[in-house]
Amino acid sequence: MKESYCDVLIIGAGPAGVMCANALAREGINVRVVDKRPEHIPAGQADGIQPRTIEVLQSYGLADKLLEEGAHLNMMAYYNPTPDGKGIERTSRAPDVNAPTTRWRHQITLNQTAIEDLFLNSMRHHGLHVERPVMPTALSISDDEIVLNDQNAYPVEITLRRLSGSETASMSDANAHTNVVDPTPQLASDSESEELVHAKYVLGADGAHSWVRNQLGIKLEGEHTKHVWAVVDCVPETNFPDIRNRTAIHSNNGSCMIIPREGDLVRLYIQLADADDLANGGRLDRAQVTPERIMNVAKKSMYPYKIEFPHKPIWWTVYIISQRVATQFSAKERVFIAGDACHTHSPKAGLGMNASMNDTHNLAWKLIHVLRGWGSPKLLKTYELERKKFAQDLISFDRKLADMFSGKAATADNAEGVSHEEFQALLRTEGGFTAGTGIQYQPSVITQESSTPPSGILVVGQRVPPQIILRVADCRPFEIQDLLKSDGKWKLLFFVGDCKDEKQTALVNAIGEYLQLPSSFLKRYTPNGASGDAVFSIVSIARTPKDVADYTDVHKGLRLHWSTVYTDDVAVDGKKGGDAYENYGIGHNGAVAAVRPDGYVGYIGSLKDVLDGYLDGYFSGFMLDSH
Amino acid sequence: MKESYCDVLIIGAGPAGVMCANALAREGINVRVVDKRPEHIPAGQADGIQPRTIEVLQSYGLADKLLEEGAHLNMMAYYNPTPDGKGIERTSRAPDVNAPTTRWRHQITLNQTAIEDLFLNSMRHHGLHVERPVMPTALSISDDEIVLNDQNAYPVEITLRRLSGSETASMSDANAHTNVVDPTPQLASDSESEELVHAKYVLGADGAHSWVRNQLGIKLEGEHTKHVWAVVDCVPETNFPDIRNRTAIHSNNGSCMIIPREGDLVRLYIQLADADDLANGGRLDRAQVTPERIMNVAKKSMYPYKIEFPHKPIWWTVYIISQRVATQFSAKERVFIAGDACHTHSPKAGLGMNASMNDTHNLAWKLIHVLRGWGSPKLLKTYELERKKFAQDLISFDRKLADMFSGKAATADNAEGVSHEEFQALLRTEGGFTAGTGIQYQPSVITQESSTPPSGILVVGQRVPPQIILRVADCRPFEIQDLLKSDGKWKLLFFVGDCKDEKQTALVNAIGEYLQLPSSFLKRYTPNGASGDAVFSIVSIARTPKDVADYTDVHKGLRLHWSTVYTDDVAVDGKKGGDAYENYGIGHNGAVAAVRPDGYVGYIGSLKDVLDGYLDGYFSGFMLDSH
Repeated sequence: MKESYCDVLIIGAGPAGVMCANALAREGINVRVVDKRPEHIPAGQADGIQPRTIEVLQSYGLADKLLEEGAHLNMMAYYNPTPDGKGIERTSRAPDVNAPTTRWRHQITLNQTAIEDLFLNSMRHHGLHVERPVMPTALSISDDEIVLNDQNAYPVEITLRRLSGSETASMSDANAHTNVVDPTPQLASDSESEELVHAKYVLGADGAHSWVRNQLGIKLEGEHTKHVWAVVDCVPETNFPDIRNRTAIHSNNGSCMIIPREGDLVRLYIQLADADDLANGGRLDRAQVTPERIMNVAKKSMYPYKIEFPHKPIWWTVYIISQRVATQFSAKERVFIAGDACHTHSPKAGLGMNASMNDTHNLAWKLIHVLRGWGSPKLLKTYELERKKFAQDLISFDRKLADMFSGKAATADNAEGVSHEEFQALLRTEGGFTAGTGIQYQPSVITQESSTPPSGILVVGQRVPPQIILRVADCRPFEIQDLLKSDGKWKLLFFVGDCKDEKQTALVNAIGEYLQLPSSFLKRYTPNGASGDAVFSIVSIARTPKDVADYTDVHKGLRLHWSTVYTDDVAVDGKKGGDAYENYGIGHNGAVAAVRPDGYVGYIGSLKDVLDGYLDGYFSGFMLDSH
Repeated sequence: MKESYCDVLIIGAGPAGVMCANALAREGINVRVVDKRPEHIPAGQADGIQPRTIEVLQSYGLADKLLEEGAHLNMMAYYNPTPDGKGIERTSRAPDVNAPTTRWRHQITLNQTAIEDLFLNSMRHHGLHVERPVMPTALSISDDEIVLNDQNAYPVEITLRRLSGSETASMSDANAHTNVVDPTPQLASDSESEELVHAKYVLGADGAHSWVRNQLGIKLEGEHTKHVWAVVDCVPETNFPDIRNRTAIHSNNGSCMIIPREGDLVRLYIQLADADDLANGGRLDRAQVTPERIMNVAKKSMYPYKIEFPHKPIWWTVYIISQRVATQFSAKERVFIAGDACHTHSPKAGLGMNASMNDTHNLAWKLIHVLRGWGSPKLLKTYELERKKFAQDLISFDRKLADMFSGKAATADNAEGVSHEEFQALLRTEGGFTAGTGIQYQPSVITQESSTPPSGILVVGQRVPPQIILRVADCRPFEIQDLLKSDGKWKLLFFVGDCKDEKQTALVNAIGEYLQLPSSFLKRYTPNGASGDAVFSIVSIARTPKDVADYTDVHKGLRLHWSTVYTDDVAVDGKKGGDAYENYGIGHNGAVAAVRPDGYVGYIGSLKDVLDGYLDGYFSGFMLDSH
């Protein structure tokens, strides 16, 4: 059998897998991705991108195409039974996103294929392609503590098998129906079909039925529900005025959710009324469901509006909602699982693909740090800590939402039903959660509560909220998030205060000198011979008015280039920017924030604390001296 | 000699030529472009893109790359002599762009090569390449009125010669100096080197020394000045804090203009003090000027700041300012000239390349209309009418600016010099002109003053000012300019008022019915078999609040697709949009604006006027019945 070595092997090229693969490939990590499907899925599956995920994609330079191609969901409409109970009428419209600090105040919907393509195209630029159809057949992790602790060792052995045509044909997903004809899988000769890979790390991003998870013996905790839902992607003809808004219909003839999609495409989620007959102990009698039946439910629930389906549906499926979380997200911090392999839930909130991509966005920089020798392996423990808690929160939110959505609407006859107000209130209070912008990571070695936290929206454990600041040298406005690229580096935001204030300047100069000392964390944790910003990228943010601010006022220790000095003021158009200090809750004395490579705030402290070694202490907790 | 036919032959692949070539190629017009230079210029030349030109490039889908690659000039800084007169100090900073309605409130600077590449890349997608090195050697236009009036005839004959290596070598531009090595020109055998082209139209976009202009016997009116300026593109090392802002330095040691460019590049304009010696009767003694001399002037004028030039300049040149306009812009509306062939002036305001591109942006849609048989040839007369007036305004502005800039700064010793206030005031009052957004085309067959003009910023003869409106069906905010693509079509903006108002709806429905009549201008001027929006693209803009507006309320005659109905309201983020009616000065009863394919307002009238045939009358003035 052929043998090979690689640093990271990723099993599964869905959203979680390709997010990780791209993040690693961009940084030159030795990574491979395999997938058992002979070709990229042609249609269907997940389609919702929440505001926080747009921010994350933007940090990888991938948001433009998504924003161009996808449907933008700005408004949500609510329909409920008419007073006579026979039809429906619009109760209200409200913004689809309820989170206060979003950069993009809307969701995007786009087929999963196009979303995966964003990553596949980017990976290609770095020479990485998905190997398919390839599936793992054996997995083992060394028991030897010495090997496990050796960052140069390859403690994971995994056998890969390149599939032949007949094997892949039997693997087609029984749940999914599509008009697009499956491509013919490539044949492989048996003699070349097996390979033993020695890996430093393995990621199982292989879906809800994860083979990797099963090999590790990791269980899912939670339950199957009795809610049976059907979903159909189609191009309807209708006089329904909210067909291009996300619309929740509670009718006496069934509930229905409309999700507008790219072009004229629409996704319909329909709850099948006779769930008890269809779903029995988690097993679904699929033979009873046809797309015509689904579309008939839609027609009835939308009465008196007319909706017709002149074309065959693009894709459709039916499923029982299951709400489960894996008990562990890793084995010995050498094999990790992510995405649907860790958590399954209803698609109601449109969060599945987002949770999956953000799992591996969280993991990727930690792997990069450890593989480069920049960070201690203890960084990898924070992956499960941070993402399992999130997954549990996700499931508990999903329970509330799915129960409420699957329940009957409140009417004169059925006062116990779900009222419009209850439904809207849930979406409102959970706005930050559904937008993804409200995620709060708990304290850990990389996420340290500040003794004197700022009083604003810049919060340790949360992502840096959007804010326009001006580049001092040319007065050009920049979104601060665009200075926080997902490039594997730490970003040190030095809020230096007023550069024209002598006392403040003295303090900032002292920090500049301190950072240039060979003993500073900046020098200790930057490899010899690497550029000054290889690990830590410094951004200075003054609060000097743009008319008088000079980038030359900031000490060279805090300024590698003229483009790294910013100030908090309104742009020349009088519209953008300003109030950064106030919004972030930072006083006139300034502050420093250490932003993790994934865009989350790891530490905030006063400028004086830097001279007293607190920032150094933070990094000493998990970084490794590279000299 | 080889003979061939083409609809439009363009001589010269500079900014004016490629703007026209791309505009025609996009629309499938049979067009060729030739240029005598063996290769695309590698460096130097023009570099400033004004706000209006960014809007125009955006309308062709070409602005993104420009905005990404170029330097953004947000702020302008002014330096004047210190009280002791020995050095300079900053007097003030002010926004670089002073126009009120700009979409982008800054200029862009980028090398001319990169700007031309925007067009060349786009042209390539439509199968059009520049033929080089090719120059014209003979030009004649038929005298036969019957031929001239026949839109199927080819009344222009032009002989083209493909140049050999030795010919192009002697052609290199004596004015330009560059570090980039010129590519070797391609050789052509003599037997294939000449071609007789029969063209319907010819465009001479062949620069200040235009061969086409000379062939037509068109004169330039105006004069050479005595102002001698040098320009150098370099990467300096300096402690000057405004090196990344556009900066005007008036010092007792000479005047200097700093133009920041892409990356760390800077362009310096320097006035040479001994102009009288150098420039004699319009002839310049170039031997006396070296880049070292230019950079020494910069060093002196910037004292006490230090500026060093560790690298050789990328490009430099020296020139006498000439301020001239061609007496005619066309011959028989069969051969046109554009760009530097029509107007030369100082580069101080950064307007040259902008004027050139906007010349052919103005011409292109008129050629498209006539070549397709949509419009009468009288459309072509409006090119000279509109662009010659603009060129004359440009020269008179340039005189004021160049005189002021070339003059000595006002100081205690020199009270008669140019004061800082005078200089700033000129830039402020001419803000709309320098931004390009204030251009006003005079009345003509295509630009008809309204009897009841709106009271706001939507003005006949001006470009449509930016405004965010919401798409009703999905509440997505759109910049109205992005609905006015340069696609050769007319845009009819129907401000339909409140769709929930019964009386207003009755009026709008009547217009919808009227437009669907076979006798309507819409049907008469749309070719048989073409799509309903082939010539006229209708955009409806309501003023119904987003929470209740339904796109289905707008009559089908005004709505080919759900995506064409908009409303005037604030977006769900509470920040963008709203006040479109108020800003544009349109009352509750609505209005209609016919927007020319180049984005300028041709006609505005009331909705009732449409039913009374006024809009029909406007189009009947120059459109041709295509049935």
